[in-house]
Amino acid sequence: MKIGIVGGTGDIGEGIALRLSPLFDVVVGSREKEKAQECCTLGSETLRKRGLACSLTGVSNQQAVDEADIVILAIPYKHLVGTLQTLNGFENKIVISPVNPMEKRDFFTTVPPVEGSAALLIKKMISPQAKICTAFNAIAANRWKALDEELTYSVPVCGDDAGAKHTVMEMVNRISHLTSFDAGPLAASGMVESLTPLLLNIARYNKIRDVGIQFR
Amino acid sequence: MKIGIVGGTGDIGEGIALRLSPLFDVVVGSREKEKAQECCTLGSETLRKRGLACSLTGVSNQQAVDEADIVILAIPYKHLVGTLQTLNGFENKIVISPVNPMEKRDFFTTVPPVEGSAALLIKKMISPQAKICTAFNAIAANRWKALDEELTYSVPVCGDDAGAKHTVMEMVNRISHLTSFDAGPLAASGMVESLTPLLLNIARYNKIRDVGIQFR
Repeated sequence: MKIGIVGGTGDIGEGIALRLSPLFDVVVGSREKEKAQECCTLGSETLRKRGLACSLTGVSNQQAVDEADIVILAIPYKHLVGTLQTLNGFENKIVISPVNPMEKRDFFTTVPPVEGSAALLIKKMISPQAKICTAFNAIAANRWKALDEELTYSVPVCGDDAGAKHTVMEMVNRISHLTSFDAGPLAASGMVESLTPLLLNIARYNKIRDVGIQFR
Repeated sequence: MKIGIVGGTGDIGEGIALRLSPLFDVVVGSREKEKAQECCTLGSETLRKRGLACSLTGVSNQQAVDEADIVILAIPYKHLVGTLQTLNGFENKIVISPVNPMEKRDFFTTVPPVEGSAALLIKKMISPQAKICTAFNAIAANRWKALDEELTYSVPVCGDDAGAKHTVMEMVNRISHLTSFDAGPLAASGMVESLTPLLLNIARYNKIRDVGIQFR
């Protein structure tokens, strides 16, 4: 199974690539292919030093879509629409959105688009044959990158295609100590996406870092 | 410190009263005072059987407000406005809202009022001298009532009055193994209130009961 990461050189994307690379074939996309290749060279060193297997290939964002079975859109919300407008070929792909529509005002707050969530906006923008799921919304970039620490979080997964959701949940469960939970259809994804600004507020007001979540 | 529970004979209210009674003076309010008194008689037996101290007094909802230092509005969202219209005397009280505006459609979903959250709606309806905090939004009624089990959840607390928020957080930390977290101003409470429909979806789609949350 090949995973393509659109925005794979960004803060979240880089960490996801490092964690997934020992488990899956990973193609790391970027607007500039050269940047993706540099990032993969550095990432491969990081993994080899730890004796971890490595399968990172740097490509353009479009190639990351084209080559992958599962595409992860590791894009900040503010760049989501602009990036999707430059991409195509999502037909029959599983597309994972970890995107959270949020802003920092006096505090962090969710700012869902009129569609109701970033995932529903993505659904409107890309091929109707794409199988969109939300996942990884509430895991901090620093945690992804801290390869010496296990990820002990719960991961809610929304989606309308039962097979795709099952595949994504099994994939999540293979990563570190993550545990996936079915969080319902894509129409319920707004509640998942609002977890992250809540967690950023918890981190800020309680002076703790990179807060995540467990259901129990 | 005296705690008054408006809606103290309801599903959540009853459980909260049982947990708080060994720790604080608790006045249990109901629309019908007799119902509150019956509920307190039963509750007192439950607590005595376990050798727990008990301080439950059944009163009307208005008396629960009048006698308390801290008022907990244990009311389902659909009855919130109707109940608040019958009550007054919130001046200088700490008012805790565990209320979640939500509906069950095909799945559970948050349905915030135009004010942005139930807590902000409460702020508009009652005395400007009331010190409103959110707390206990995401703990299931069955967990409150399962007195033989510890509550091991995180409790986000929103509020605009620093002193009141501190008091509420210390109160939360005294109950079982609950841990309070400052979740920012009352304007951020919508994100806390949307946790519960998310958790109800997690419970439903994964066939588990009474799911709660931990920040970590």
